[in-house]
Amino acid sequence: MVFEKDPTSLYQIYPTTVAVIGARYGDELNFMAAAWHTLLSFNPPIFGVSISPKRYTHDLLMKSGEFTASFLGHGHAELVEKLGRTSGSKINKVLEYGLELLEPRVVKVPGIGNAVAVYECRVLESRSYGDHTFFVGRIVGLHYDPRAFDEVGRPAYDPVLYLGKDVYVKIDRSRTIEFDPEKFRK
Amino acid sequence: MVFEKDPTSLYQIYPTTVAVIGARYGDELNFMAAAWHTLLSFNPPIFGVSISPKRYTHDLLMKSGEFTASFLGHGHAELVEKLGRTSGSKINKVLEYGLELLEPRVVKVPGIGNAVAVYECRVLESRSYGDHTFFVGRIVGLHYDPRAFDEVGRPAYDPVLYLGKDVYVKIDRSRTIEFDPEKFRK
Repeated sequence: MVFEKDPTSLYQIYPTTVAVIGARYGDELNFMAAAWHTLLSFNPPIFGVSISPKRYTHDLLMKSGEFTASFLGHGHAELVEKLGRTSGSKINKVLEYGLELLEPRVVKVPGIGNAVAVYECRVLESRSYGDHTFFVGRIVGLHYDPRAFDEVGRPAYDPVLYLGKDVYVKIDRSRTIEFDPEKFRK
Repeated sequence: MVFEKDPTSLYQIYPTTVAVIGARYGDELNFMAAAWHTLLSFNPPIFGVSISPKRYTHDLLMKSGEFTASFLGHGHAELVEKLGRTSGSKINKVLEYGLELLEPRVVKVPGIGNAVAVYECRVLESRSYGDHTFFVGRIVGLHYDPRAFDEVGRPAYDPVLYLGKDVYVKIDRSRTIEFDPEKFRK
């Protein structure tokens, strides 16, 4: 094992699904790709995402206090890459990429129409950690395509799975392992 | 699309790698599996993990203010499942599973010896969100197996990849997509 006091590369948590974060303030609507996200609580449902203050989405989010998080299938990897590598300060991504939008029910920010699942979130708080801001969002609505998830809610579709630095991989379901938790419970 | 105001299932962010969280207070040492984790900042490097107060590890972490996060290969999926489905309040997991430990350099908590990467973390703060506590840790050391990551640091190994509710999948590298970010940059 090699040891580094200051990591020179931070991809150890990868691969990860990508959350396409939607933010809107007035007429300004933007979407960006975020790999640094996690669930935080079951009840109430809370989701968190880390966003650099350099991102155009950051200020929209700060001002509006609402966002959506859309999860897409592997077939949309190129769209996700584009949303991650372009800035809303330079282009209108909705027009440029002809994005189909999902009408929100609770917040005022749409989701991505091609998504298999979309969280609608209200920001509970934002915390500054190092060079990013962590937005903590109460999930106030969930849209999902029931064909994309199995009977207990696990993904049954091929997600956008990011390996880091512009590379995406797929899941190999032929080598799925399922454990019986009762066997281990102690 | 189906809409739920209160999600009945929360696996939309899956699959995800699993961080095996090590915590130690005095003679008490424990490891648990955590799927709700994310990076939070590049510089300084910061990592966060959400842990239920019901977990034995939670109190160790609260008291010691230090932890390790170990990332393992798919071949150790059963070990990860066991660490997630058993409690340190009932068994000594280190003895029970004959865990090999990785000697830490900065903190007093070891990592998992079979890991391909281990973060050593000092807790910057803990925040209570719903039914979990989010521990924010400054990464003060990184151990990694250089054979497990490629030239830019992306995973080159087969990670433990959790699909939810006791199911693990593998990566299919034969269908990797790599984009040229310059093509999209605007």
